[in-house]
Order: sequence, then C-alpha cells, then structure tokens
Amino acid sequence: MTDTTHSIEPDTTDAQLDRLLDAAAAAAPLWEDRTPHDRAAVLVAIADALEAHADGLVAEAIIETGLPQARLSGELNRTCVQLRMFAEELIDGTFLDVIIDRADPDFVLGARPDLRRYQIPVGPVLVFAASNFPFAFSVAGTDTASALAAGCPVVLKAHPGHPRTSAATADVVAGALSAAGAPDGTFALISGFRAGTRALEDPRIAAAAFTGSVAGGRALFDIAAARPNPIPFFGELGSVNPAVVTAGALDERAEAIASGFVGSFTLGAGQFCTKPGILLVPAGSPITDQITTLAQQVPAARMLTAKIAEGYHNRIEEAAAAPGVEVLVKGTASTGESGVPEVTPTLLRTTAEQLVAQADTLLEESFGPAAIIAEYGTEDEVNRVLNGVDGTLTVTVHTRTEPTPDEREQLRSLTRIAATRAGRLVFNGWPTGVAVTPAQHHGGPYPATTAVSHTSVGTTAIRRFLRPVTYQDAPEVLLPAPIQERNPLAIPRTVNSAGQSSTWGRAQS
Amino acid sequence: MTDTTHSIEPDTTDAQLDRLLDAAAAAAPLWEDRTPHDRAAVLVAIADALEAHADGLVAEAIIETGLPQARLSGELNRTCVQLRMFAEELIDGTFLDVIIDRADPDFVLGARPDLRRYQIPVGPVLVFAASNFPFAFSVAGTDTASALAAGCPVVLKAHPGHPRTSAATADVVAGALSAAGAPDGTFALISGFRAGTRALEDPRIAAAAFTGSVAGGRALFDIAAARPNPIPFFGELGSVNPAVVTAGALDERAEAIASGFVGSFTLGAGQFCTKPGILLVPAGSPITDQITTLAQQVPAARMLTAKIAEGYHNRIEEAAAAPGVEVLVKGTASTGESGVPEVTPTLLRTTAEQLVAQADTLLEESFGPAAIIAEYGTEDEVNRVLNGVDGTLTVTVHTRTEPTPDEREQLRSLTRIAATRAGRLVFNGWPTGVAVTPAQHHGGPYPATTAVSHTSVGTTAIRRFLRPVTYQDAPEVLLPAPIQERNPLAIPRTVNSAGQSSTWGRAQS
Repeated sequence: MTDTTHSIEPDTTDAQLDRLLDAAAAAAPLWEDRTPHDRAAVLVAIADALEAHADGLVAEAIIETGLPQARLSGELNRTCVQLRMFAEELIDGTFLDVIIDRADPDFVLGARPDLRRYQIPVGPVLVFAASNFPFAFSVAGTDTASALAAGCPVVLKAHPGHPRTSAATADVVAGALSAAGAPDGTFALISGFRAGTRALEDPRIAAAAFTGSVAGGRALFDIAAARPNPIPFFGELGSVNPAVVTAGALDERAEAIASGFVGSFTLGAGQFCTKPGILLVPAGSPITDQITTLAQQVPAARMLTAKIAEGYHNRIEEAAAAPGVEVLVKGTASTGESGVPEVTPTLLRTTAEQLVAQADTLLEESFGPAAIIAEYGTEDEVNRVLNGVDGTLTVTVHTRTEPTPDEREQLRSLTRIAATRAGRLVFNGWPTGVAVTPAQHHGGPYPATTAVSHTSVGTTAIRRFLRPVTYQDAPEVLLPAPIQERNPLAIPRTVNSAGQSSTWGRAQS
Repeated sequence: MTDTTHSIEPDTTDAQLDRLLDAAAAAAPLWEDRTPHDRAAVLVAIADALEAHADGLVAEAIIETGLPQARLSGELNRTCVQLRMFAEELIDGTFLDVIIDRADPDFVLGARPDLRRYQIPVGPVLVFAASNFPFAFSVAGTDTASALAAGCPVVLKAHPGHPRTSAATADVVAGALSAAGAPDGTFALISGFRAGTRALEDPRIAAAAFTGSVAGGRALFDIAAARPNPIPFFGELGSVNPAVVTAGALDERAEAIASGFVGSFTLGAGQFCTKPGILLVPAGSPITDQITTLAQQVPAARMLTAKIAEGYHNRIEEAAAAPGVEVLVKGTASTGESGVPEVTPTLLRTTAEQLVAQADTLLEESFGPAAIIAEYGTEDEVNRVLNGVDGTLTVTVHTRTEPTPDEREQLRSLTRIAATRAGRLVFNGWPTGVAVTPAQHHGGPYPATTAVSHTSVGTTAIRRFLRPVTYQDAPEVLLPAPIQERNPLAIPRTVNSAGQSSTWGRAQS
C-alpha cells in the first residue's frame, strides 16, 4: 500500500522552528495584554476571512481528503461558528472566573488580606492538528480558537494528511491576524514529525493539544510528561463508543435504530472519534438482520489517508479472526483515482460475553467503517461490558422514549456505570455529530483523553489554556483590569462569597 | 544523624492495601450518590469530631513534631474551618458547574439536542500527607476535605514524620464518618513507602494529591504519568518565593520590612512552602544590617524530622559555598531531647547577578530557616532574577503604599514577569500565612506544582477531583438531580447561554 500523504510542504527546519518559538514567546505578553473584547474582534476577523476564502479552501480540501463538498462546507461553517462562539465567551467575561475576597479583619482564621483571583493564559500552546476534520480540528479549529481566545499564541503542527489545505488555511489565519493588528508570532504553522516533537520538548511551549490515535497521542503525552518541567497535554485519543439497545426500544422503533446505527458508524467512512463501534442488542433480535441488510447497501467511501486505511485493515482483520466472532458483512477495499483505498463497511457479530472475555481485541477502537454487534442475554451482561470498556468519549443508550418503571431501575444502574466510563451519555440518538455549545463535553477517562477534566469541543474548552493567579493586597494601580475594584471591563465576579451561610459561620461562634 | 522518624505504626501490607482499595472502589458510587447537602453534613460532623478531640490530637502532635501548642491548635482550627468551608461550597452548589443547553431546532449549526452538563467525582483519590502541617495538610487536611467534598473516597498515605498524630486523626475521621452514616471505605489510612507507590499504580485510584519535596513529588508524578492509564497528579512541590523590596518601600518602612522578613523566613523553622527564600534589596541599603541583627536574635527551633534537617543542612552548605556568596549569619545546629536537630537561622548575601549566574545552586528551595539577601543595582537586574526563577508559589513585592507614577511603570513590568512565574503575587506583606478563602490560589508553574491550573488551598481546590459529564436528550427520569429540569436541589445553573450577543449571532445571519 503506497502512502499518498500529500507532503508537499517542506518540513520545518530546526532553525525555522527556533525563530517561530521565539516569536511565539515574544507575542505571549502582548497577546495576553489585549482586552478580551480586542481578542474577540480578532477571532471574528479570522472567521470573516475564512468565510471569504471558503470556496478555495473547500476545493483544496476536497482534493486532499476526498470528503464531499457539503461535508467540508459544513465543517468550515462550524469552524467559523466556533471562532465566533469563543469571541462571545470573551465578551461575556465569565471565563476569567474572577473571585474577589476583600480584606476582612474579622475573618474566622484571623485578619484576611484582600485577595483577587482571575485566570491568565498559560503561554504559547502547541496544537497537533487532526486528520479527520481538515477544518474544525485543524489549523483554525477548536484547539486553535480556544487557545487564541485564552490569550495564548498558537504553534500549529499541520497534519500530513492535508498539507495544502493546512497551508492555505494558515495563510488566511495569518493574514487576518496581521490585518487585525495581532502581535507578530501570535500564530505559526509548522510541519514534520521532528518539528512537532522538538516543539513539544521546548521550554517556550507551555501546553499542548492533540487529536489522533492512542499510539501517537500516548507517545506525545509521554514526551510532555518527561520534560524537565512537565506541561499539560490535552490529548483526545481513541474511543470505542459503545451503544446499548433495550428490548423496549426495539419494540418502539427497531427500523429507525437500525438505519440510525448504520448511518452513524459509516458516516465519514467511520473516521470519527465518536463512531459507535459496538452495538449491544438483545440476543435473537431481528435487528441484526436489518442492520446487515442496510450495511451491505452502503457504497464505498474513501479513507482519509493510505496510512489510516492500512491501520484500519489490520485492526478489523484482528477483530474478525477472534474466537466467537462472525463476519456479517465483509468490507471490500479498492484503490480509486486518488490512490487512497475506498472501502465498504464491515460488520461483525459476537456475544456480550465474548466482548468481555476478549476485551483487548474487541473493545478497542477501529478507525473506519466497522462495527461489532454484540448480543446480550441479560442486563447484567450489558453492565459487565460497560465495566470492561476503557475510557470512552460516549456511551449511547436506546430505550423507550418513556421508560417503564421496571426499565428505569435497570437504566439507572446502566447509566451509573456508563458515567464512570464516558464524558457524554447519549439517549435515543447517535454520538456522531458533536454539538458545539457550552454544555457540550467531548472528553472522558483515558484513553478517550489524557486530561479527564477537560473538553476539546464547546466553549469550556478555553479552560485548558488558563491558569489562576491571585493578587494579594495589591495597590489598585497595579491590578490588572479584570480584578480592579471599579471593574472597568464589567466582568462577572464572585465577591466575598465565603461565610455566607450558617453552616460555615458555625466556625466563627 | 539518626533518623528519629516515629514509624511505630506498622506499614500497610499488600493484602491490607488490596482490601482498602476494594473498599474505596465500592464506596465510590455510594458516596457520589449522597446529595451535596448530605456530604456537607458529614464534613461538618468530621469538623465537630476533630474539635471534640482537639486537646488529645494537639498533645500528640506537640510530641511528634516539636511545633508549639498555639501553632498546632491554630492549625487544627484551620483544618476544621476548611472542612466547614467545603461544606458551604457543597450547599451553595456552584461547584457542580451546571450548564444546560435546551434542545434548539434552529441552532446555528443545525438542530441541537438537549445537553446538560455537570461535574461528577473522578473516583477514589490517593492523598500523600505533608510533613510540615500535621493537621491542615495531613490526614483531615485540605486535600482530604476537598476530595471528600467532591464525592471521592480518600486513601490517605500518612507522613512518617507524625505517625501517631496521623493514626489518632484517622480514628477521629473514621469514627465521624461512620457515625454520620458515610459508606464503609469512604476513608482509609495507609502507611509506608511501598503501600503509597503501589496505591498510586493501582487502577482503583483515579487521582492523587501530594505536598512535599521536588524530588519526592517528581518521582510520584512520574509513576502517575507512566500508568497504563495516566491519572491526574496534583503535586505541590518546591518554591523559592522571591521577594523584592523597592527603594521607595525602604524610604517608607525599612524597619518593618526587616522584621517582617525575618519573621516570615524563620516562621515554623522555615519549613513552609511559602517561605520567602530570596530577598532582593537595593545595593548598599542598610536594611541588610538590620536583617542580620534581627536574624541573629532568633532562637533555635526544632526541625520536623532528622531527615529534613539533613537535607536542609546539605542545601545551605552548597549555597554558602557558591562563588560570590557571603555568610551573614551562620546557623547553628544542636540535637535536643527529641533527637531532632534544633537550628538557628542562616542568612547569606550575594548579588542579583550571581543569583542569575548560579541559578541552579541559588534559585532553589532550602526547606528550613535560611534566606539569601541579593543586592540589585538596577530594575533590570530584578527582572532578570524573576525571569530566571522556576515556577514558584509566590512572588512578593514591597513598594510604597502609594507608588509614584515613575514607580508604577517599573512595577507593572515586574508584576507582569512575576505573574508568569507565580500563582500568587503578594504586595507589602509576606507570603507565609495562606488565607483559606475562595479567592486564594496556592499553586504555580512547575516545580511549584505539577498542575498549573489548580490550587491546593481555598475552596476551588475541589475542582481537582471533579470531571464533567454531559447528558444528551436523556429522559427526565434518568437525569441526576443536579441537571433535572425541575432543579430539585436548587443548584445555580447556566442555561441557554450561547448566541445571546450580537457578535456570535452574526453567524446565524
């Protein structure tokens, strides 16, 4: 299999990297100094520029990734909406998490000084772009948008799967930043494995974000952790995304579940981190046949890169060969004009018991259009599977729209286990299609992510790149604007919140 | 030097540890299930019990640590106040960070499902107790209080410096938990290096907290990061805590600064993580003589353990022997009745330039009653020192109470650099004495901590042990109470916050 990765952009040299990191370090205090309103205007300017260049960017991405025009246009729109949403967060100001405790001579533990806390940017952020979202998780994607919003310069390591799209997007971003008056060094694109790992080791980088495979992400996490000064590494790695279907749900809408599942696990040739890889169904249910029939009708779709296709092929070969696994639909692979394999879906069948017994083989992500239907006999078997799953971005549950009292008890137990494994619990829907919104959580325990308390989608993603600092008894003239007593930026703030209620006041008596 | 560590408590065996970890894992869902109000009542019950046993606990700690009665009584009070303060946080409910985005068919990126996000406990937490606060950072200290508040069972690794105090405190905590009806396994004490490291490697542990040395903390951080599933490790390690005195401040109150500094760096025999280890003063200022005189008058104070005393001795020998370093006050060490060395302060003098030139030797923590006075010629020299300091918990600045316009500019530049290095900036005061309050930030870049975005003092310390989970389109009957539409717990919540302002709404046009 030839790797057709479009690596026409030359790798960043050591000398180039050094200059870019110097520029990022120099930009950090200047970019931090811009008011949240100013940074918001710059993010909006980037969104405007991407929209103005949408046709050319999408055309380039179609050639490089083989993804359809509608999908890429929608993704570019999402990218712009993300930028605008972070701009809105900046204007709102809650992200600064301002907490003020004014001096209190009668504080329960003795006189308390004036303390004012808010969030400041961590410093230059290194972002490793993803393969599967050439816009929304790439050059101007959610990691870049949230880091810039936080006040951090961004050094973006381009994904080799779409180098021309990356370079073109970077040109638009850099042009917009420059036109909007952002400091030089606020954003830079780098290319090549060596440049990425050297940047990750560099003291000028204060945090890193990554979306990709478990193997790649873990290797980078290990580098970040082994530094003389370890830095936060926000990796979104791999996820199995199990889905459970109850007998009640099948009574209500088996056909819709079958078509929804096939649509979800084959969407984008199954190359989504939220692809449902496992479907747990009641043993003997006819839904398996319905799913099989639908999966056979899905046309071939191009994989993102030859390397990804090869990894996928090896992964499903391994799963299909496992004891107790039956191949319901055997996917085909052919190499089209692009030189990158085009594949049809693969569907496997096994039992819940086999999933648990062979967790290392079967409860692992396969990045492509493959899924395993696992039949369960009892609710306990479902719970054992969920308990055996590693950290995952999502767990999906299909149940009756109005669960019966009997079902509720069982579902509460299932939901509890699912919450220990996943960052998002999806009911009566599918995990692909991650809404970009404040309440979103795109995260989960390892290996879903390397930082269980953070999300890479939605507005709270900005929190990854902030850290608190507290000013104690500072003269007003030395206070940063967000924590000045007169509150010139009109930031929401929590003031003197301790000791308000009787429980805690008890200590004062 | 004999190590007089009071290791009379037998080390936890592997079999005992296994049972305790099983119990913690079993307690996790039960403790999580308690409402925030219920957990608050349990924290208050622990505080009540500690207060009821205060005399005995303090008496034991006096024997083991040699710290004075007033200090230990005050620390126990602080410990109880912390528990009550976290109880108040639980009752307030803001810590759950509830964000609700109701379904929206007209959302800018297409129909949006109902998304409800809140914070859940990460799971059982391993806490490594500190040597220097036998109550406030030990068995029932801030790590334990914040983890229990978050809904996490706690496995507490006792510090070998005060084993009987630890065991006695653990008995009080366990008794209070049991009497208040907390699940078995909610709290356990373990002893011994092997038990601590094995627990840290164990899959039943979901996060760890530590207060101690850079060497010890880094070794544990590395274990946490090397696990098959890495877990968050909240280590508070070492800190230099530089303090800067301007010429204007000396004009105003040289004497008060001299006595404040000596009081701060010798407090608790200098065994505070916030001890100011470096004092930058204008070259030729008479304050150096004032400080020297005062330091010579400080009586000998007992170190916490013989091992700490040995490390301290080696550290100051190294610093005193460095080129360009003058010994102003040479500390003495004698072994008292307890077998643990009692020491008088050591005061060194050098220049700001030497600090930068020998940063590896001089800009390092010395855990004991020693400090370096460094004379500077220009403001640039001060900035270079601050730029050369590793991450630190605090930077202190003494300036005029009302800085002149000229001073302000220089101070803004200094403050900016300080904020890149420290978690707390102290003005016209001293860093020891860390107020326990919502606006506190006791943290900072590595090696001050291993998790730059988190604090180990103050109510936001609870955030370390929480992680988000989002429910998508869940039937109301399956929603946890904090995110039910009818809000039965009356939790503060952010609802439908996206797309409120014109900037972001722009994307909808």
